[in-house]
Amino acid sequence: VTAAPGVEKQVVRTAAALIIGSEILSGKVREANLFALGTTLRSLGILLNRAVVCPDDRDIISSEVRALANEHDVVFTSGGVGPTHDDVTVEGVAAALGLAVSVSPELAALLARVYGESLTETHLLMARIPTGALLMEGAQVRWPTVVAKNVWIMPGIPELFRMKLAVIREHLTGPEPFFSSELYLNAEEAEIKTLLDEVVMGHPRVEIGSYPKWADRRYKTLITFDGRDPACVELAKLEARDKFSRFVVSLS
Amino acid sequence: VTAAPGVEKQVVRTAAALIIGSEILSGKVREANLFALGTTLRSLGILLNRAVVCPDDRDIISSEVRALANEHDVVFTSGGVGPTHDDVTVEGVAAALGLAVSVSPELAALLARVYGESLTETHLLMARIPTGALLMEGAQVRWPTVVAKNVWIMPGIPELFRMKLAVIREHLTGPEPFFSSELYLNAEEAEIKTLLDEVVMGHPRVEIGSYPKWADRRYKTLITFDGRDPACVELAKLEARDKFSRFVVSLS
Repeated sequence: VTAAPGVEKQVVRTAAALIIGSEILSGKVREANLFALGTTLRSLGILLNRAVVCPDDRDIISSEVRALANEHDVVFTSGGVGPTHDDVTVEGVAAALGLAVSVSPELAALLARVYGESLTETHLLMARIPTGALLMEGAQVRWPTVVAKNVWIMPGIPELFRMKLAVIREHLTGPEPFFSSELYLNAEEAEIKTLLDEVVMGHPRVEIGSYPKWADRRYKTLITFDGRDPACVELAKLEARDKFSRFVVSLS
Repeated sequence: VTAAPGVEKQVVRTAAALIIGSEILSGKVREANLFALGTTLRSLGILLNRAVVCPDDRDIISSEVRALANEHDVVFTSGGVGPTHDDVTVEGVAAALGLAVSVSPELAALLARVYGESLTETHLLMARIPTGALLMEGAQVRWPTVVAKNVWIMPGIPELFRMKLAVIREHLTGPEPFFSSELYLNAEEAEIKTLLDEVVMGHPRVEIGSYPKWADRRYKTLITFDGRDPACVELAKLEARDKFSRFVVSLS
């Protein structure tokens, strides 16, 4: 079953990511998809609440997916969807959701179109999906994304992962947008803590973050302001800018 | 209580990481410590089994640390150790382990030495530790690392995190070293799957990984071989090189 984009977007309140790859835990490969996923979701007004990195192990994947899918509206997995022995994500997701694994006729037909006469049984391994999964289509994306219940199965290869973000954008949305603003200060965290605490206490609807920067000549601390109400975000920032006026740095 | 390096290393069989930072989940900051940690641990013969990314929330940190610390020999946390309102890692770790939080006289003395007359109450917030935690010293590292039971509390700033890896190297070791080898092939995964399965089946003591590379002119698939027995690793690689001789690429 395929789902065309643009009909009506699903409203997502909580989301989690499962990064699948022994090579990431062993420090052979640098994780590269979490940042892109977090950025995309934030632009949609969706907060990524938790991310887990686990090895290429069917049973571990299944137990991680089960826990994440129970506790979040949507889960995104990354990795483990190729044709080799260490690609066990589809089996793991299916087991987590109590589904069998079967070959999708739609994906098999797509593979046949790509590979033509050279299509083999091995290629068809990439057409396996948790039985009953949706194939989410994107207007600009050739290959659909497999979505089993609330689990989006995304590829691990960063270039392909980033392409698939367009499909997420077409099908999902947060309850309302996020608004973000920031201040760069030429002061150490310890110098501003007392006044910053006052700003934090005075603006309960704004999430305020403080991030020291190491060995940067331009600034020492970044203060971020995030919330669903743009007026609240702006007020918190204005108050902070007022309190820290002698430290404020322009980075444009 | 401080622990000097080099006495006797603790043997670690299982390890986990907790990356603490709302800014990472929201895609504002790129995670930068997991790769360095994984690489360092692998060089010591320690496998990182799992990593979790969570927001700057005391109760969430506490529940994540409790779960990870129960299931692994050692847990490394990253982030949330500064003096501002969003730095709640010490409280979270202490709560997870059933410990109170108190000011370490040793860390307070170190801070007094660094800040001299300009030392404030805010600086002393950085001397808080879970009560009874060890201060692990490194020969080349000025600042000790706080270790509460089996939880190593590491800083989030990547430059500082990497400095502290030296302390890990001086105090921890795996049960035996890992040996790794790899082959670069100019073949897609689907072309080699059947023969690769034979290698995997024939070498149960070697973990074999297959990683497709996207849009790289030099190779299409990286095959990795990992294990505790160097002869087994080498044998598996030799058999693969034999089977895939027409695809092997030299990347030197």
